[in-house]
Amino acid sequence: MPKNQHVLIIGAGLCGSLLALRMAQRGYQVSVYEKRPDLRKITLDSGRSINLAFSNRGNKAMKLVGIDQQVKTLCIPMHGRMLHDTAGKTIFAPYSGRENEYINSISRNDLNALLLTEAEKRNNVSIYFNNKCVSVDFENTSALFYNYESKNEHVINADVIFATDGAGSAMRKSYYLGKKFLFSFSQDYLTHGYKELSILPDKTGAHKTFKNALHIWGREAFMLIALPNLDGSFTVTLFLSYDDGTYNFNNLTTEARVLEFFSTYFKDALKLMPNLVEDFFKNPTSPLGTVKCSPWHYKGNTLLMGDAAHAIVPFYGQGMNASFEDVVEFDQVLEAHPNPESKSDWETIFKVYEAKRKKDTDAIADLAIDNFHEMKGHVNNAVFREKRNLEMALEKEFPNDYASKYSLVTFNENIGYREAMLKGRAQDKAILNMLTDGVISLNDDLEVNLKKIKQETEAILEDDRIAGLK
Amino acid sequence: MPKNQHVLIIGAGLCGSLLALRMAQRGYQVSVYEKRPDLRKITLDSGRSINLAFSNRGNKAMKLVGIDQQVKTLCIPMHGRMLHDTAGKTIFAPYSGRENEYINSISRNDLNALLLTEAEKRNNVSIYFNNKCVSVDFENTSALFYNYESKNEHVINADVIFATDGAGSAMRKSYYLGKKFLFSFSQDYLTHGYKELSILPDKTGAHKTFKNALHIWGREAFMLIALPNLDGSFTVTLFLSYDDGTYNFNNLTTEARVLEFFSTYFKDALKLMPNLVEDFFKNPTSPLGTVKCSPWHYKGNTLLMGDAAHAIVPFYGQGMNASFEDVVEFDQVLEAHPNPESKSDWETIFKVYEAKRKKDTDAIADLAIDNFHEMKGHVNNAVFREKRNLEMALEKEFPNDYASKYSLVTFNENIGYREAMLKGRAQDKAILNMLTDGVISLNDDLEVNLKKIKQETEAILEDDRIAGLK
Repeated sequence: MPKNQHVLIIGAGLCGSLLALRMAQRGYQVSVYEKRPDLRKITLDSGRSINLAFSNRGNKAMKLVGIDQQVKTLCIPMHGRMLHDTAGKTIFAPYSGRENEYINSISRNDLNALLLTEAEKRNNVSIYFNNKCVSVDFENTSALFYNYESKNEHVINADVIFATDGAGSAMRKSYYLGKKFLFSFSQDYLTHGYKELSILPDKTGAHKTFKNALHIWGREAFMLIALPNLDGSFTVTLFLSYDDGTYNFNNLTTEARVLEFFSTYFKDALKLMPNLVEDFFKNPTSPLGTVKCSPWHYKGNTLLMGDAAHAIVPFYGQGMNASFEDVVEFDQVLEAHPNPESKSDWETIFKVYEAKRKKDTDAIADLAIDNFHEMKGHVNNAVFREKRNLEMALEKEFPNDYASKYSLVTFNENIGYREAMLKGRAQDKAILNMLTDGVISLNDDLEVNLKKIKQETEAILEDDRIAGLK
Repeated sequence: MPKNQHVLIIGAGLCGSLLALRMAQRGYQVSVYEKRPDLRKITLDSGRSINLAFSNRGNKAMKLVGIDQQVKTLCIPMHGRMLHDTAGKTIFAPYSGRENEYINSISRNDLNALLLTEAEKRNNVSIYFNNKCVSVDFENTSALFYNYESKNEHVINADVIFATDGAGSAMRKSYYLGKKFLFSFSQDYLTHGYKELSILPDKTGAHKTFKNALHIWGREAFMLIALPNLDGSFTVTLFLSYDDGTYNFNNLTTEARVLEFFSTYFKDALKLMPNLVEDFFKNPTSPLGTVKCSPWHYKGNTLLMGDAAHAIVPFYGQGMNASFEDVVEFDQVLEAHPNPESKSDWETIFKVYEAKRKKDTDAIADLAIDNFHEMKGHVNNAVFREKRNLEMALEKEFPNDYASKYSLVTFNENIGYREAMLKGRAQDKAILNMLTDGVISLNDDLEVNLKKIKQETEAILEDDRIAGLK
């Protein structure tokens, strides 16, 4: 195998284009094949500007490839959740007690375009659009593509193949259907789906409501959220059951029903959305799924990364961040095993990477499901709010000594997701139980509360360890 | 839809033949199609007599169809685990402190044969062997079969279809590949596989070692077990990693290696197995997988049951019992919704059944994985043994007031698996922590210990409820 190896990347989405840039920086010959047209050359429908939450783990990856300052210009900071009740009353709930900890709204397209442009600046990267991966021959390290322009199929051989082709990954399908090895796989759908809507800018081009927050209309059985865009609009997402409840996606079939639903539950949002009905019937309803699988790699030939390896539901705002962190973690393994020259060297790298990484992507998948329930309902629950208030006070007063589960997951990029989950869950359990039992209260001395929480959290973790549960 | 409806059952294994018998008892016209030849008419290889653990939940089903006394004659009671250490020393660990609580070893074939014969006695049951299901058209309630004898494909239409065609279910595959609805699905393999071996009878036809126990040679990273057969033999199963450790399935490729492995770790077993090497290289190595999916039904047309809906690993001895319990639970739903006449009636029945049943089959799947670790290792661990000893004493002294997790799962057929899991896990956690912390000890008064365990168990369950964890 030559020093100057040919790395094939399937998929030029967020993860694939970042990986291409990083592998090019490391000197590999990189080819990227992408199913869709070049998104820098096509115009989007208005009101279809999709945004994502971007936070510390994602930013660590941007720093790794040296484009964090450029990315910053694409970001709108969101310092907390703006909770809207049915009467239209709002409460602002900060994400952290520390001023410098916030998440960002960013356009998926703008960020992807930047990554593609940065990758293409390297003369050892070639990106081919309109090439859909049909299947991967993982035993021979080659992939079959269908070119939408020439309407022909063609095979690409490589020294190693990375599939970053998203939740519907063609390579993962080849692993599953190939039955050449024991492939553990799961796809889990929520009974809720989602639909994207929009709040357009006002006549002056400004945001119609407070832009530096993630807006939430949590209604227990369903919810609406809104994230700001640079053009003055918000992308709004409705999460609703397909089948259950008085209002669901299957029975919201007329203009009157949709308006009735929104005027009952989201009155203040409806006022900002004269375009609601049009959006509602134009935009698709999409499912919410979690994908886990193992192994991610076939020997030293092929590796799944990003959503292709671990698709998660969007409720922790960590999907893109987790995929970017994959590249950071993979890069660390490459750093520790430099200059792989044989299939066996690559196999070692893939094994070490998966052994270190999979526990963390499994954890964020589970945390994201938990947060669905928290966002829909618990944010409105008295003891949960009391907990959040106490935690904000602790983070403000003891910025170096306390971090909530949300902070551990979102703002502590040097702690893995699994560690954040175990500690965060134990902490939540300690606080909720001590608040309920009156062992601590918001009126008590903060330092005393902090000490009690730390002791109880440690006791919970220790009890689980003894019982062999963790 | 006529009163006298045509029920098609795919698969005449344990679950399918029981279901056929029960549906026939309820007056339906039942057709059963089975891939394999009639097992009553073929002879098996010697040393390939596969047995299973049969216990209360399974027996409840036998009582339902009125054949429990016949089944009893096929059973060999196993009152506990016989634990073998590397020196060949044994300790007997009973399954319960109550005399009447034990599990049974039963031949899969003998039991299946009995069920087939009982089903065929009814004139409203027809069983067709050598017919492999190719696919199910669940929208039109019909199934495509390939007949191995005529070598032709043919379609069978029905009013409702039940797929009891096991872990590799053709109907489940049709659900998955059909993409007509959101189908959540998982297949999870352990990194261990298994191989069946045997201890043949002695010259007099008697068992070579104690027959009324489930023998376990637990070695942390792997284990060997043996269950008795009526013919004087034991079916022995080796559970071992495919890849990891000094000895694994991938590197046990020579006679010398196999003998070295067994003489190092299973010396006393090896003495009883002069046929080891022959068995080892003749019998396949098979994977250990868990399958979960949802929904189990398509509208009122089709329903997955047994392993087709929920395949589990064998370590709790509950695979067959859970499948039999499916039939009991389904029958209860039918009892509460008698005389379904339309697709919509059947849909209600299928929905109610799945809503009640799935949480329990998910729980036993997870418990079975836990027990793998317990059997390999924890049975040898001092504090786990201390716990078991205390629990046996409690069950003996307070037979109506205490049941261990094992008893809740295995001997309490009127409690669902999920309730058994939640209570059993909390109880284990309480005891392990209190033993470790010196809050209770085997020397303390039993009644005091019982009270402390009950209080601590309830506190653990309550803490989890407050934290929203359960």
